[in-house]
Amino acid sequence: MSANLDRRSMLALASLAAAGAALPAGAQQVPADHMRHMTSVPEGAPKVGLLTFPNMVALDLIGPLTVFRILRCETHLVWKDLTPCPTDAGIAVAPDMTFDDCPADLDVLFVPGGTIGTTACMTDPEVLDFVADRGTRARWVTSVCTGSLVLAAAGLLRGYDATSYWAVADLLPLMGARHVPGRVVRDRNRLTGGGVTAGIDFGLTLAAEMMGEEAARRVQLVLEYAPEPPFRNGTPEEAGPERTAAMKAARAGMDDAARRAAMAAGRRLGL
Amino acid sequence: MSANLDRRSMLALASLAAAGAALPAGAQQVPADHMRHMTSVPEGAPKVGLLTFPNMVALDLIGPLTVFRILRCETHLVWKDLTPCPTDAGIAVAPDMTFDDCPADLDVLFVPGGTIGTTACMTDPEVLDFVADRGTRARWVTSVCTGSLVLAAAGLLRGYDATSYWAVADLLPLMGARHVPGRVVRDRNRLTGGGVTAGIDFGLTLAAEMMGEEAARRVQLVLEYAPEPPFRNGTPEEAGPERTAAMKAARAGMDDAARRAAMAAGRRLGL
Repeated sequence: MSANLDRRSMLALASLAAAGAALPAGAQQVPADHMRHMTSVPEGAPKVGLLTFPNMVALDLIGPLTVFRILRCETHLVWKDLTPCPTDAGIAVAPDMTFDDCPADLDVLFVPGGTIGTTACMTDPEVLDFVADRGTRARWVTSVCTGSLVLAAAGLLRGYDATSYWAVADLLPLMGARHVPGRVVRDRNRLTGGGVTAGIDFGLTLAAEMMGEEAARRVQLVLEYAPEPPFRNGTPEEAGPERTAAMKAARAGMDDAARRAAMAAGRRLGL
Repeated sequence: MSANLDRRSMLALASLAAAGAALPAGAQQVPADHMRHMTSVPEGAPKVGLLTFPNMVALDLIGPLTVFRILRCETHLVWKDLTPCPTDAGIAVAPDMTFDDCPADLDVLFVPGGTIGTTACMTDPEVLDFVADRGTRARWVTSVCTGSLVLAAAGLLRGYDATSYWAVADLLPLMGARHVPGRVVRDRNRLTGGGVTAGIDFGLTLAAEMMGEEAARRVQLVLEYAPEPPFRNGTPEEAGPERTAAMKAARAGMDDAARRAAMAAGRRLGL
């Protein structure tokens, strides 16, 4: 019932916006032909399911998604429902497939990060059941940033090397994973990346594993990926203890919630 | 202000819903409180207008947008109307402000890239008038990837050093700019970045210019930006002549259209 009401109020907002010239006539004009062109995938392309949840970090998703699409994979933004998800970037990203409709056998299961969003996932049985189910059969079980905490909470990293966002990577062992330093960490078919911008390094590494080094190099040239950071400040080691402590302090509430979720997941996993 | 921003978030969601049709059960779960928290900006924050157009490259926009939001800038995704824009990543990004409503005096005018999208912008008088108008007064006139071709077509790079996406950077001189090699090129208040992934290097460089090195370093740690590309293949020089020629061939139609648009713009500018 409240779902109905809310859908109605969203649509009312849309028509209000239209009346105020904000939403123009032609909102339907998203050029479907172009989209179809861009989303065409060859027969037999790898099937990639990307978990798409509220309060994720947009870059965590869109970096790897861009790599998968240049590789012409079959990509699915998967969630419980198709409600657009708010992100840190202020844009909403709409899932395009529900859990029920997601292919049973994925070539890649991918989970992006965003601490608030992943903490909610770590305590949501419906999400964990989906992740555990697809992760058990996927050829590659993967994440960037705090996404690895969701994989771990679903039991998929027990006895595996893995990494995560620097501020919460110490939570991995609470769920049976070994935290290994590294921008991208591979252990058998688990491939986990560090925080946010590691999504490109992760994507290229996975591209090479799945489709060969030449395919990965092609993606790298398309993305003009020859980074030149103006500072060395991307890790706690580079930033130094003072800057790191200040940021940990600013994140304390968020990270405490993640820790509680990790401890609860560890208990569920019998650890 | 926060009421205003929250209304924008709702409109973005509503217009996505209008374009994408199905708003499923559960639409009530968009956590409005969280959005309000994440979109709050302090009084006097820099005003950033980001051109948001159909067929842009999502990463070109979302990399710099993420940096601006961590800096708590007042960000506006600006376009003719609020119709969600299709992107290369298969997600639609909804503008949240029309040209008419965009502040007259921006601290930053930013144009992302995506060759098909920017070529359309380069031949659209309404877009060029807007870019030229805001660019004349903005404190910083900026771009990533092929976005610099739009700045140039609007006459904003005449007599300036600039860069662009590697495959089309040779078009800049047709519109009176000097093409200078570099990941991020600054000339007075013009700051242009190279292709796609250069958006993070660009964003950190601009962050340091606007808000000081410590602020930029903070952003870098938030984004865990300590890149480790698995290959050296991000520029034509790194990729070598064979791979570069293959990619130029695959892009020929797109790049020809961009060249014609650049030549037409040059004629309009009296060059």
